[in-house]
Amino acid sequence: MALHPRLLQRALHPGCRGLASLTRVSREEGVTTITLTSPATRNALSLDMMLRVTEQLEEAGAERAVRAVVLRGEGKVFSAGHNLKEMTVDTGYDYHKRIFDTCETMMRLVGQVPVPVIGVVTGLAAAAGCQLIASCDLVVAGPHAQFSTPGAAVGLFCHTPGIPLARRVPRAVSGHMLLTGLPIDAEQAAMAGLVSSLVAEDRVEEEVAKICAAIASKPRGVVALGKRFYQRQLELPMSEAYPAGGRVMVDNLWYRDAQEGIQAFKDKRKPVFSHGEEKVES
Amino acid sequence: MALHPRLLQRALHPGCRGLASLTRVSREEGVTTITLTSPATRNALSLDMMLRVTEQLEEAGAERAVRAVVLRGEGKVFSAGHNLKEMTVDTGYDYHKRIFDTCETMMRLVGQVPVPVIGVVTGLAAAAGCQLIASCDLVVAGPHAQFSTPGAAVGLFCHTPGIPLARRVPRAVSGHMLLTGLPIDAEQAAMAGLVSSLVAEDRVEEEVAKICAAIASKPRGVVALGKRFYQRQLELPMSEAYPAGGRVMVDNLWYRDAQEGIQAFKDKRKPVFSHGEEKVES
Amino acid sequence: MALHPRLLQRALHPGCRGLASLTRVSREEGVTTITLTSPATRNALSLDMMLRVTEQLEEAGAERAVRAVVLRGEGKVFSAGHNLKEMTVDTGYDYHKRIFDTCETMMRLVGQVPVPVIGVVTGLAAAAGCQLIASCDLVVAGPHAQFSTPGAAVGLFCHTPGIPLARRVPRAVSGHMLLTGLPIDAEQAAMAGLVSSLVAEDRVEEEVAKICAAIASKPRGVVALGKRFYQRQLELPMSEAYPAGGRVMVDNLWYRDAQEGIQAFKDKRKPVFSHGEEKVES
Repeated sequence: MALHPRLLQRALHPGCRGLASLTRVSREEGVTTITLTSPATRNALSLDMMLRVTEQLEEAGAERAVRAVVLRGEGKVFSAGHNLKEMTVDTGYDYHKRIFDTCETMMRLVGQVPVPVIGVVTGLAAAAGCQLIASCDLVVAGPHAQFSTPGAAVGLFCHTPGIPLARRVPRAVSGHMLLTGLPIDAEQAAMAGLVSSLVAEDRVEEEVAKICAAIASKPRGVVALGKRFYQRQLELPMSEAYPAGGRVMVDNLWYRDAQEGIQAFKDKRKPVFSHGEEKVES
Repeated sequence: MALHPRLLQRALHPGCRGLASLTRVSREEGVTTITLTSPATRNALSLDMMLRVTEQLEEAGAERAVRAVVLRGEGKVFSAGHNLKEMTVDTGYDYHKRIFDTCETMMRLVGQVPVPVIGVVTGLAAAAGCQLIASCDLVVAGPHAQFSTPGAAVGLFCHTPGIPLARRVPRAVSGHMLLTGLPIDAEQAAMAGLVSSLVAEDRVEEEVAKICAAIASKPRGVVALGKRFYQRQLELPMSEAYPAGGRVMVDNLWYRDAQEGIQAFKDKRKPVFSHGEEKVES
Repeated sequence: MALHPRLLQRALHPGCRGLASLTRVSREEGVTTITLTSPATRNALSLDMMLRVTEQLEEAGAERAVRAVVLRGEGKVFSAGHNLKEMTVDTGYDYHKRIFDTCETMMRLVGQVPVPVIGVVTGLAAAAGCQLIASCDLVVAGPHAQFSTPGAAVGLFCHTPGIPLARRVPRAVSGHMLLTGLPIDAEQAAMAGLVSSLVAEDRVEEEVAKICAAIASKPRGVVALGKRFYQRQLELPMSEAYPAGGRVMVDNLWYRDAQEGIQAFKDKRKPVFSHGEEKVES
C-alpha cells in the first residue's frame, strides 16, 4: 500500500521550508520572472516545485498587467528534471501518476497562459528540465547552455520530455538525445532550433530585455489571441488551419486595438492600445 | 453597410494604373518569373496584387512549356505584406473576408501549381510577404535578406503567416518571430530552414539559374506528380503515407518518361523526355 | 505477362553469388554492424539487398545480446538507391509492387527494431539510400558525406524517399532536394538536421563507438520501450501524446531496471541492470 500523498511529501522533504522557498517571483515593467531557487537539488522538478510553478504561471497569466513570463533557474543548472527520490516503489502507483499528471499540466500550461513564456538557459537543462524549456514559446541561451534527456541511464526513459522535444528539433537530433542521453551544446541546440536566441554570456540579460520590450509594445489581447491560435493551428492539417486562420484574421481586425494600430499606422503616429479584447462596432 | 467591393477598390486605389502594373511577368527557357513591381507600396499584397499573382500562377501552371516559376520583388523589399489601408472598419466585414479568402487561395496555389515555385529574397519579406516565401517550394536568399512577422505591432497578429511558417522552421523560431515581431536575418533563416539556398549577393542569379536548369532537365509530368504527392504525404501519418507512396512509385514507373529515363540510364545515353503524363502499355 | 519473381531475379543477377555476399554482418560488444558490400553496384538497394537487410535487422533486433545496430556501406557510396534494372516494364507490375512493398517493410523496420539504429555516411546516400539514412534513429556523417534524391532525373521521382526526408528536414530543404535533385553536403545536412553528428573523417569511428557505448550502458528493455513510444508519439497530436506519455512513464517506473537505476542513483553506486522488461511487485 502506498502512503497518502501528504504524508509522503513530508517524508520526502523532512526539512522542507515550504513551497515558497522553491521559487522566487519578481515583476518588473510587466514582466514576471519565475526563478527556480533550489540549486542544492539542481532545481529538481519535484512535485512541490511543479505545483509551485503551475500556480505562478496561472497567477501571472491572470494578471492583466503582466505581458510576458521569464522562466529561469538559480545557479549553474536550469533544472535537472524530476526528483528521482519521489519515484521509488514505496511512493506508490498513485503518487507516480500524480507526478506525471502534474507535470503534464505544468508543461501544457506554458503554452496556454495568454502571455509569451521565455525560457532562459545558461547552464544545464536535463530531462524534465529540458522538457520545460522545449515547452517555452521562445528560448534564450548563453554559450555554456547544455541540453540532455538522459533518463534511460537511470532506467527511466525520457518519454514525456521527448514529446515537446521531438516537435521542436529534427528527428535525428531528438533520436540522438533520447537514445544516447548525451548532451548537446548551445550551438547544436541553436542549429537544431531548440534555442531561438543564442547570445554571448554577457548579453543574455540584454537579449531577454529586448524580447520582453518587443512583446510589451504590442497589444496584450492581440498577442493572447495570436498565441492561442498559434498553439491550435500547429495541430491542424493545412486544409483546416487556413480556413480557421482566415476567420481569426477577420475576427482580430475588429479588435479595437487592431483598428487603433492600423489608424495610427496610417496617421504615422504611435498607437495607444487598450491591451484588452474589446471589439469595435460594425 | 460596407461598400461594394468594386467601389471600394476604386476608392482605395484612386490613381490605380490597373492590375497590369502591379507585377511584371517574363518567360525565358521555360522559367516564368513573376516580379512584384510596386516598390512604392513595399510590394504590398493588396487584394489586387493577390488576384494578379493568383492569375499569373494559374497561367504559368497551365502552360506546358513552363517548367518552373520564380517569385521575386522589385526593390529592396520582397513584400511587406497586406495593404493595411484595406483593413479599416469602413471597408467592412465582407471585404476583409474576401482579402483573407483570396490570400488563402494564392498561398495554397503556390503548392498546387504543377511546377516548382522558387522564392527569391534579397531584402525584407514581412508578414504576408514572409508567408508567401514560406509557401514556396524552395527559397533562395542573399545575405541581406530579412524575415519577420510583425503584425501584432499594428494590432493584427500574423495568424495566417504563422501557418506555413510554423511548418517550415523550428517552433522556438516561429514562436520568437510571431510573438516578438523581431526580424531574423539571412543566416538565421538558413539555419532555421526557411531558406534552402543562402548565397552571396552576386551569386543569387547564378543559384536561381542552376536550380531552374536542374528542374528543367527533368520530365515535367513526373515532377508534377512528385510535387503533388509530396504536398499530399506531408499531411498524412507515416502509416498512410507509405502505402500511398508505394502506389505512386509503381504508377510513376509506368510513365513513358520513367521507362525512357531508365532505358537511357542503362544505355548510358541522354534521355529524350516527352514531358507528358502518358503511360506505357503493360 | 510478367516473369515469376524467382526467374526474374535469376535473369537480373546472372552471376549472383547469392544473398550472403551483398552484406557483411559483424558483432562486437553488443553492436551489430550491417555493411552493404556491393560497391560495384554503388550498394544498390536491389530487391535481394533489401530482403537481406530486412532479415538482418530482424535477427539483430531479436537477439537480447544486441544493443545497437550500425548501418554502413563499403566504398565511397553508402547506397545510390534502388536497382533501376529491376524497374523496366519487362519485370512487370507485380514485381514493381513487390520492390516497393519490400522497401516499405525495410524502411519502417528500422524504426521498429527494439534497439537504436545508427546510420553512418562518409560518401553519397542517394534516393532510397538517402531514405534509409532518413529512417535511422540517428546519423553520423563525415565531412565528405552527400545526400540527394535525384530520382526525377531518370523519370522516377523520389516519392517514398520524400516521406521520411520531409519529416526530418525543413520543408524548403526537402523541397529543394526532391525537386532539383541537387545534392546537399555534410554541413548543409547537419544544419538541416538530417545528420545528428557531423565529425571529422578520422573521428567517425570514435563517434560511432561513443554513441554505441552510451546506448549500451543503458538498460535494453527500457531503451526498447523508449524507442517504441517515441515512434508512436511522433504521430499523435499533443493532446493524445501527453496522456499516453504519462501512462508510459508510470509503467516504466515499475520496470525492475528503473527501480534498480533509481536506487543506485540514491546510493551513489553503479546500477546493475537485467536489461529485460520484468516489473517489480507493487
